[in-house]
Amino acid sequence: MVNVLALSGSLRRASINSALLRAAARIARPPLRITVFGSLGVLPLFNPDLEESLPEPVAVLRRAIGAADALMIASPEYAHGVSGPMKNALDWLVSDEGFVAKPVALLNASPRAHHAHDALLETLNTMSARVLREACVVLPLLGSGLDEERMTRDAATVEAIRGALGHLQAALAQGAAAGPAFPV
Amino acid sequence: MVNVLALSGSLRRASINSALLRAAARIARPPLRITVFGSLGVLPLFNPDLEESLPEPVAVLRRAIGAADALMIASPEYAHGVSGPMKNALDWLVSDEGFVAKPVALLNASPRAHHAHDALLETLNTMSARVLREACVVLPLLGSGLDEERMTRDAATVEAIRGALGHLQAALAQGAAAGPAFPV
Repeated sequence: MVNVLALSGSLRRASINSALLRAAARIARPPLRITVFGSLGVLPLFNPDLEESLPEPVAVLRRAIGAADALMIASPEYAHGVSGPMKNALDWLVSDEGFVAKPVALLNASPRAHHAHDALLETLNTMSARVLREACVVLPLLGSGLDEERMTRDAATVEAIRGALGHLQAALAQGAAAGPAFPV
Repeated sequence: MVNVLALSGSLRRASINSALLRAAARIARPPLRITVFGSLGVLPLFNPDLEESLPEPVAVLRRAIGAADALMIASPEYAHGVSGPMKNALDWLVSDEGFVAKPVALLNASPRAHHAHDALLETLNTMSARVLREACVVLPLLGSGLDEERMTRDAATVEAIRGALGHLQAALAQGAAAGPAFPV
């Protein structure tokens, strides 16, 4: 199996980003298996002083990332910036060796949210993640009224997600064949 | 008195940004009075669902901002982005009417940290804050070894802070004379 850990940058119950990741998990077919991380909302606010004795929720997140073959991230844009909860989670991963060279696919649920998308890419690249550009997709879901259930039945959404998953799988297969991946 | 509320984007005990704000508070002279907000670390992670019944730490922050004539922000750059704790605090203020048109001075303790600085400006402008460009200063403090005490005695640092405070005071006096300020 190829294990993909999905992280949502929104803590809202009706979050379209969380719904998108759950829909992707349902659409994924073996060998891909997507597990949506419970919630980034359990993490404390980032404080470098606490890294000496890592808070348990942070350790749980790092272990989950270490065990994953790739990450899938969907995060909202708040005030033209990355959501606080998403950036907070990434701050805790800056010093995590398990994050380096980790393949990442970014799903963007709103074509207009390019500020946060660009900032997220900049941060992920700075953290030496291996962003899989071809597996990153933009879907016009914000305001579409589609919930998780409908996303799994909407032809355009299913096609976009399948496309992203196909690229993700191909990149991982290629990376595995080429040996460990390192950021350029 | 002119009340300025200072917000640090770092929760680190030895944070240079927090030290800079405390130094500015000591350097400020009447009618300017700078109060450093206890810690943005007491806020919960942003969740729009919780805005219906606002968590007390968020209410405390909003009241402090409502009572302030201006804000002074100093925040570190983590992985080429705004610190999670800083962005999280701003997320809670997006729907706060008391934040609109609030005059803001940004202090940047590292000339190299332009990604976070630019992203912070973009978010503050999107939130309709009134960023006082002339009161925003960049100080080469990161790696300088200066702590709060030394900042209050280092000639270049004191001069830069006094310059920022002078511009802040002038802008506020002008704003008061011109009536309520609204973002352009």
